[in-house]
Amino acid sequence: MPTLYHCADARSLRVLWALEELDLQYELKVLPYPPRQKSPEFLQVNPVGTVPYLVDGHTTMNESTAILQYIAVKHGDGKLAVAPSDPAYGAWLNWLAFGEAALTVPLAAALRFSFLEPEDKRQPALAEGFRGTFFDRLGVAEAALANSKFLCADRFTVADISVGYNLHLAARMRLLERMSPRIQSYFAELQARPAYQRAKEKQKAA
Amino acid sequence: MPTLYHCADARSLRVLWALEELDLQYELKVLPYPPRQKSPEFLQVNPVGTVPYLVDGHTTMNESTAILQYIAVKHGDGKLAVAPSDPAYGAWLNWLAFGEAALTVPLAAALRFSFLEPEDKRQPALAEGFRGTFFDRLGVAEAALANSKFLCADRFTVADISVGYNLHLAARMRLLERMSPRIQSYFAELQARPAYQRAKEKQKAA
Repeated sequence: MPTLYHCADARSLRVLWALEELDLQYELKVLPYPPRQKSPEFLQVNPVGTVPYLVDGHTTMNESTAILQYIAVKHGDGKLAVAPSDPAYGAWLNWLAFGEAALTVPLAAALRFSFLEPEDKRQPALAEGFRGTFFDRLGVAEAALANSKFLCADRFTVADISVGYNLHLAARMRLLERMSPRIQSYFAELQARPAYQRAKEKQKAA
Repeated sequence: MPTLYHCADARSLRVLWALEELDLQYELKVLPYPPRQKSPEFLQVNPVGTVPYLVDGHTTMNESTAILQYIAVKHGDGKLAVAPSDPAYGAWLNWLAFGEAALTVPLAAALRFSFLEPEDKRQPALAEGFRGTFFDRLGVAEAALANSKFLCADRFTVADISVGYNLHLAARMRLLERMSPRIQSYFAELQARPAYQRAKEKQKAA
């Protein structure tokens, strides 16, 4: 049974959501943010002090998109994964990485320079530049969704969780109104998924 | 036969290096940096204008670590990949993602704020902060390499390319001296690989 270390609304929400989609048994440890400062005992488990942190037998992982793929392939019976023999395999791997590298990186930088930094270190212009980059790149996802309900393989996969997490985070940052109608309808559909709702409840309850 | 669009020393070097390691046939298109401005005809091929851009039949991809995995699994006969049945599978996926998300992101941000931005927009203190983050996280790789020649699975895989590319980039940024002895010896071993040397030659020649 895997153990997931998680902070509310952090990247580890990707993993919690995937565990719920697959109806897996797992242990959830919710930590206050930032865990490095507020949960010093966590440093005994993960010296780097970042979440997500997944422990599954002898396997330990901290990169949320890598964990998505790991869970889908190892524990998901192929349900949320795309097999190498599938013509959508390359697209699936690309969306998994894109969700973090192209989307979360600028969005998290915008959050840092508009909110997380102490007030004298905030940089509104820089933050707005990062928000612009995020929305530019979201256009790539929008193009893929123009004639399709999901990003690839014509079905919901962990690629939709990798990208969809950004919409959750952007909504928390009050950026929902700047999203295009298609991205808003895609997000509405993701939000309606029972597993997403259970993940949101569980991070509260714990 | 896949086609790779590449700029010298950019993240696409990861892909070029992997293609050389696997002795694959491919077409290489080297573009001036930044391609979006300097190769407007490239926008006909990839509207986002970023490299790497890989075209392999109907598959197109632009995330370098996703392409590493794709090539290793689809064209590598398992040579540079780690199979889901291998105990090192989770570690392998994690290092692939870590190379970009934990290492290239702060290193590229340091490059941006110390060099790529016009002089009046450079921020030396911010750049140094990003360099510090990079070296902190490099400590995680160093720990993994303490008793091992490679990052995982006791052999060279595309995970070593994902992480190793950062050492190439850091050396170009004259940060070699700040690396620990173990990281320097690991980088020396990567540099000695004939495929790495061929990749460096090919990006020059084209």
